[in-house]
Amino acid sequence: MAPKNAFYAQSGGVTAVINASACGVLETARLHPHKIGKVFAGKNGILGALNEELIDTSLLSGASIAQLRHTPAGAFGSCRYKLKGLHENRAEYERLIAVFEAHNIGYFFYNGGGDSQDTANKVSQISQEIGYPITCIGIPKTVDNDLPFTDNCPGFGSVAKYVAISTLEASLDVASMAATSTKVFILEVMGRHAGWIAAAGALAQERANGAPHIILFPEIPFQQANFLQKVQTTVKTQGYCVIVVSEGAQHPDGKFLAQSGLKDAFGHAQLGGVAPYLAQMLKTELGLKNHWAVADYLQRAARHIASQTDVDQAYALGKSAVEFALSGKNAVMPIVVRDSDSPYRWHIEEVALSKVANVEKTLPRHYISEDGYGITPACRAYLEPLISGEAYPPYDKGLPQYITLSLETVAKKLKGSFAIA
Amino acid sequence: MAPKNAFYAQSGGVTAVINASACGVLETARLHPHKIGKVFAGKNGILGALNEELIDTSLLSGASIAQLRHTPAGAFGSCRYKLKGLHENRAEYERLIAVFEAHNIGYFFYNGGGDSQDTANKVSQISQEIGYPITCIGIPKTVDNDLPFTDNCPGFGSVAKYVAISTLEASLDVASMAATSTKVFILEVMGRHAGWIAAAGALAQERANGAPHIILFPEIPFQQANFLQKVQTTVKTQGYCVIVVSEGAQHPDGKFLAQSGLKDAFGHAQLGGVAPYLAQMLKTELGLKNHWAVADYLQRAARHIASQTDVDQAYALGKSAVEFALSGKNAVMPIVVRDSDSPYRWHIEEVALSKVANVEKTLPRHYISEDGYGITPACRAYLEPLISGEAYPPYDKGLPQYITLSLETVAKKLKGSFAIA
Repeated sequence: MAPKNAFYAQSGGVTAVINASACGVLETARLHPHKIGKVFAGKNGILGALNEELIDTSLLSGASIAQLRHTPAGAFGSCRYKLKGLHENRAEYERLIAVFEAHNIGYFFYNGGGDSQDTANKVSQISQEIGYPITCIGIPKTVDNDLPFTDNCPGFGSVAKYVAISTLEASLDVASMAATSTKVFILEVMGRHAGWIAAAGALAQERANGAPHIILFPEIPFQQANFLQKVQTTVKTQGYCVIVVSEGAQHPDGKFLAQSGLKDAFGHAQLGGVAPYLAQMLKTELGLKNHWAVADYLQRAARHIASQTDVDQAYALGKSAVEFALSGKNAVMPIVVRDSDSPYRWHIEEVALSKVANVEKTLPRHYISEDGYGITPACRAYLEPLISGEAYPPYDKGLPQYITLSLETVAKKLKGSFAIA
Repeated sequence: MAPKNAFYAQSGGVTAVINASACGVLETARLHPHKIGKVFAGKNGILGALNEELIDTSLLSGASIAQLRHTPAGAFGSCRYKLKGLHENRAEYERLIAVFEAHNIGYFFYNGGGDSQDTANKVSQISQEIGYPITCIGIPKTVDNDLPFTDNCPGFGSVAKYVAISTLEASLDVASMAATSTKVFILEVMGRHAGWIAAAGALAQERANGAPHIILFPEIPFQQANFLQKVQTTVKTQGYCVIVVSEGAQHPDGKFLAQSGLKDAFGHAQLGGVAPYLAQMLKTELGLKNHWAVADYLQRAARHIASQTDVDQAYALGKSAVEFALSGKNAVMPIVVRDSDSPYRWHIEEVALSKVANVEKTLPRHYISEDGYGITPACRAYLEPLISGEAYPPYDKGLPQYITLSLETVAKKLKGSFAIA
């Protein structure tokens, strides 16, 4: 009997290393041709399954697959699409399973955050009920580092490295200029609900004479008077002040700083931007000349300075997902378990998808310094190994050699299309 | 007779490679101890001379000086301070020369942009008049790439590389997400008066399936209706649109887009940010979900991904400055002369400081595509070699090993202080 095929999809915001996980899945599956047939990738994530748009990865050369390990973003396309609850839209799950059955797919590898793990869990359950059982394995991914159980989430270590290095470099810059020019530099980073990425900025402190001086976390309500005082004191004593702020920094009433009332010329509320908001505040309240940067996608796509640890773990988790499936496991997610901080040692275990779903891991209070503007030694010990090593991509003519794949899909087997809600 | 000492100062906005020029100056001077005594560096640039705050670089180890080659920003401090004209404030020039004479300084190496070359030229002239002749050599530096005569300016190649790579990476990211989420990504880059940095974004096009699709240059007046049409068409045909915009992009009336009327909650005009301005426009006018980034200091400080060509030229220009001085040249600046594009070959010549001062080299029209939104093959041939090679710094614990110097200054010899205007 021909072995079952597999389906792999990327979900949610992409990262510098999600393709390294894809590489781990594809390379490992190829080692077991008698157990796994073709691996289909979903074009634009789970939408590829719902729309029956499947990319046949068996057509990719080994060299192309190997290049995924050093290519950022989602090579097969990702999507922001959360399946509804089983009771709200059972038809979606039935459609997924119909497509899987039509293409003889018996394995589902879903590479994403908490919502995706929940989806994978539900697909596993309903496939049993329907009588077409599918082995469902989640693969963790999120730059926000907010999944429980795993030591960290692939994607985070590389963002952390980018933010730490960028903070270090910008800190040296403003230190050079502060005598006659810019006194404050503000870097806005991602992390709407959790301050992990902002915390990584603090790793620059040892190399940058103590900068960044202030970190604003989503977990600590913003106190304007206290903040202004701290900036002023820092500029007075150090000559300048470097601030790393999470996009999720909040007022005590829970309102994002980024929604604090900037309006365009027509009076429309302006989109986001906590850095320009703080810049304006410092200019108005303290008269301090400042510069600000918003890293946005640059931070999570920065494969050029990815963490070797992160790339290794992303690959290992993809590989383990396939190995778990082949060993008969189901509805689980491989996780990184830390054995020691220094030297950093880790191994891979598993956790049931039912436990992962919808649990958000924010920065614990004991990782944040007492005054709320920095990190503790415990947090530093946690973060440091995650940015270790430089996984440089190959270059040609001054630019990284990233691969972009043709996203041609295989012929559909089902009649009609499925209307996505 | 003891040889004359030298004075070296960094001026204006710092770069990823200005310290490589410093390294070239210091290492070369050390090869000629019978001709150049100590090299003093100005603490915070020319202010160090006016305030008689001189850093004795002879106290630095050879290893420390070597580390400057891979350290971004201004290791001795820079400043934004333009000396006035000779007739407006002759006292400033006399003060400089008094400080130089007090410390037996006979060589002045000034590392900066157009204004700094003008200053170096004036110091040379007035030193002759006063009867304490000083050999003045300029060393070019500016990320804006707007100095005349030289093939390019040290600092520019590394910013160009950073912008090209960041544009490539973010383009792959938005391409992954566009099916269900972000349709437009906007990257704001430096270059208030010249579009060289924005043009570098176009180098990503071959690797990123044609992205960036739109570049907004300061040299091309912004036409809102045409721009919106171009974005809409691009999203329709490509599925997404990537825009690189210069901070200096202007309305037809010459007003910066960045000053187009964003106001804070109190009605104050908001500081800069052309990216959020365009983001708001695309949201309001076309209803397109978008993301935006402002690279700001991150781009010019990004030594972690500096261009090897840029580092080599920055070093070579510092070295040549010293060699020119020793060969009896005065009031000149070493420049890079391009012999061929591919392979890129270059050598160093000189130009009189009097010719350099106050000439600004903007992007020529034939480097911009006919529709005003891209670059021509000629521009690509010019830019490509400048981002060639990766000059990685050494790393420890996941972070670059940049050096920060003690900025201790030598005992003052002059009585009283000088009041800076």
